[in-house]
Amino acid sequence: MKLLVLPGDGVGTEVTEQGLRVLDWFARHRGLALDITHRTFGMENWRRHGTMMPDETWAQILGADAILFGATGSLDQAAAVPPEERRKGSLLRMRGALDLFANLRPVKMPAALTEASPYKPRITEHVDLIFVRELTAGIYFGEPRGVETLPDGTRRGINTHSYTEAQITRAARFAFELARTRRNHVTSVDKANVMEAGALWRQVVGALHAREFPDVTLEHMLADNCAMQLARSPRRFDVIVTDNLFGDLLSDAAGAIIGSLGMLPSASLSAPDASGRRRALYEPVHGSAPDIAGQGVANPLGSILSVALLLRWSAGRPEDAAHLEAAVERALAQGARTADIAAPGEAVLGTAAMGDAVLGC
Amino acid sequence: MKLLVLPGDGVGTEVTEQGLRVLDWFARHRGLALDITHRTFGMENWRRHGTMMPDETWAQILGADAILFGATGSLDQAAAVPPEERRKGSLLRMRGALDLFANLRPVKMPAALTEASPYKPRITEHVDLIFVRELTAGIYFGEPRGVETLPDGTRRGINTHSYTEAQITRAARFAFELARTRRNHVTSVDKANVMEAGALWRQVVGALHAREFPDVTLEHMLADNCAMQLARSPRRFDVIVTDNLFGDLLSDAAGAIIGSLGMLPSASLSAPDASGRRRALYEPVHGSAPDIAGQGVANPLGSILSVALLLRWSAGRPEDAAHLEAAVERALAQGARTADIAAPGEAVLGTAAMGDAVLGC
Ligand SMILES: CC(C)[C@H](C(=O)O)[C@@H](O)C(=O)O
Ligand SMILES: CC(C)[C@H](C(=O)O)[C@@H](O)C(=O)O
Repeated sequence: MKLLVLPGDGVGTEVTEQGLRVLDWFARHRGLALDITHRTFGMENWRRHGTMMPDETWAQILGADAILFGATGSLDQAAAVPPEERRKGSLLRMRGALDLFANLRPVKMPAALTEASPYKPRITEHVDLIFVRELTAGIYFGEPRGVETLPDGTRRGINTHSYTEAQITRAARFAFELARTRRNHVTSVDKANVMEAGALWRQVVGALHAREFPDVTLEHMLADNCAMQLARSPRRFDVIVTDNLFGDLLSDAAGAIIGSLGMLPSASLSAPDASGRRRALYEPVHGSAPDIAGQGVANPLGSILSVALLLRWSAGRPEDAAHLEAAVERALAQGARTADIAAPGEAVLGTAAMGDAVLGC
Repeated sequence: MKLLVLPGDGVGTEVTEQGLRVLDWFARHRGLALDITHRTFGMENWRRHGTMMPDETWAQILGADAILFGATGSLDQAAAVPPEERRKGSLLRMRGALDLFANLRPVKMPAALTEASPYKPRITEHVDLIFVRELTAGIYFGEPRGVETLPDGTRRGINTHSYTEAQITRAARFAFELARTRRNHVTSVDKANVMEAGALWRQVVGALHAREFPDVTLEHMLADNCAMQLARSPRRFDVIVTDNLFGDLLSDAAGAIIGSLGMLPSASLSAPDASGRRRALYEPVHGSAPDIAGQGVANPLGSILSVALLLRWSAGRPEDAAHLEAAVERALAQGARTADIAAPGEAVLGTAAMGDAVLGC
């Protein structure tokens, strides 16, 4: 398996380093065989090469079986980069080019973090949900888009939200199949009461359900109501399937249940090829966090749990994935805390020490 | 002042009745003079008149200074109604026709509800924020929209997100002016990193700020981050200005802080006319709640607090508005609870009894 490592900007490099230590552990102790290549990404490329995306790096991206990604620079930092260059080196371009339509974002509450969560224990207890966020269509990719000048000289900004039946169906099929490996429940989220594309989403998901997945429970929910239910009773959710934009907001809202973005992993998967293999990109949900970058204090668990997803989805090693997830749970249960998940008064570990704690479990 | 009352469907009628009792109190005790007209709305019209919008009702809507609205039927119920009819009787048509561009959604935590909130007290304490949600543009109104059939016979759903400079400016100006009457802080929310229309939003809000409101603190925030921050540290927000769709999701997410949609009021305002008067629609944020309709158990405080907004924004009676809001706080402090805001074991009042409790305070 060819793994490309792109630590990227800011805390991306620091957390990815810990993810790699964990991968190395599985190589040495469990015979995991990986062909690993490293490349810079993001603002780092701009500084070094004067381009956000050297051709050779792009070729590596297109040729990799899996990518372990860190984070990419913030909007402020990218302001100096011409828009065309920014697009060349963007996460969105990778998602599109690799056709990574299924973005998985699990939100599982570790009992040990009950104190750190902004929610009461009666809300967070046993929360275990996962988003299947469609990642290659919707308003992120729709055309026409841009800013036009009106006859009176003022401007108008336009973006297009677009979904084909095929795009909806493959995301929903992924969600139903995933639900069969979990608690057999899918919540499909849209604004069918306002958007025609949302009404089509609802209809297509409903038809697929009736045709192929009558054994799975399906509920439809409006996106605004979902935002509220994630706060009121997150335990009711198992698999949530939704579009690119709603998935972006709602998965961050759900992430707040755990108390920190720093805990959240993600996997972005393509359709399987002829030999059944999916291309994949693994990344923590958090960004480059320029405010704490370079200090060795970022939480590496988002990256480490992304490695667990890699073990499950790309390396075909579900037991190793579960083993790693259990090690993280144990480290937390033993009191290991980075600053973002520490309750007032708790002792705090740096990035590498949290990596040590997981490796020691 | 001509007030049109549209209780609408489901619990809409029950909660509006309590809002009207409160208005009546101000008429009898404080000399509030209102010329009140009542009309049915929503599915009730369909059942009675075979149309979602009798011409005469529409004329009343266009002629009113203010509307007190209850709720409109759910998607499931409306399934039998032809789409064209549904549009004729929709909230969206009213918002558009009356040009109600500024949707105000205050979220103020009553100390008495600390127990009912899903959030910990350290999160909810002193939360007092207000959304200025743009309500007449964005993906709710953008063209082209609809479902088209592709050459291969499958379908594609399309909606257009569109904002002109003028639309952004008037919403942002409203937010800055409102902030000057509060804590002088505005958070402008967009997805400028993904949407060109979001980048324009950010630019236009920034330019208006520099030009006319340098005394107000402005921060820009990405919508996904805002969803997270509303859960982690809602106290940091004062005025939040955002587009129609983000406002829909984020205001529901923020509403969860209080623990129930049933508590939340809203006002939707037009630009002032030559004589400085704004047309306005007041409604609780919750919907028709068919599951509990007709049982007399719905929380009327969303409607009652909407009446407070009416006193403030349409009747020019800020002291009466504050008086009513204080009465609601007192009723809650004395333990008055409808089912949606009762903590386990607390005694529960019905809709009318909650109205009594507020009137008694
Ligand atoms: C960085 C940004 C483009 C991205 C998105 O909006 O998809 C991020 O928020 C995410 O959720 O992966
Ligand atoms: C009923 C629906 C059309 C409406 C909206 O999406 O605006 C509602 O959710 C609201 O927030 O007022």
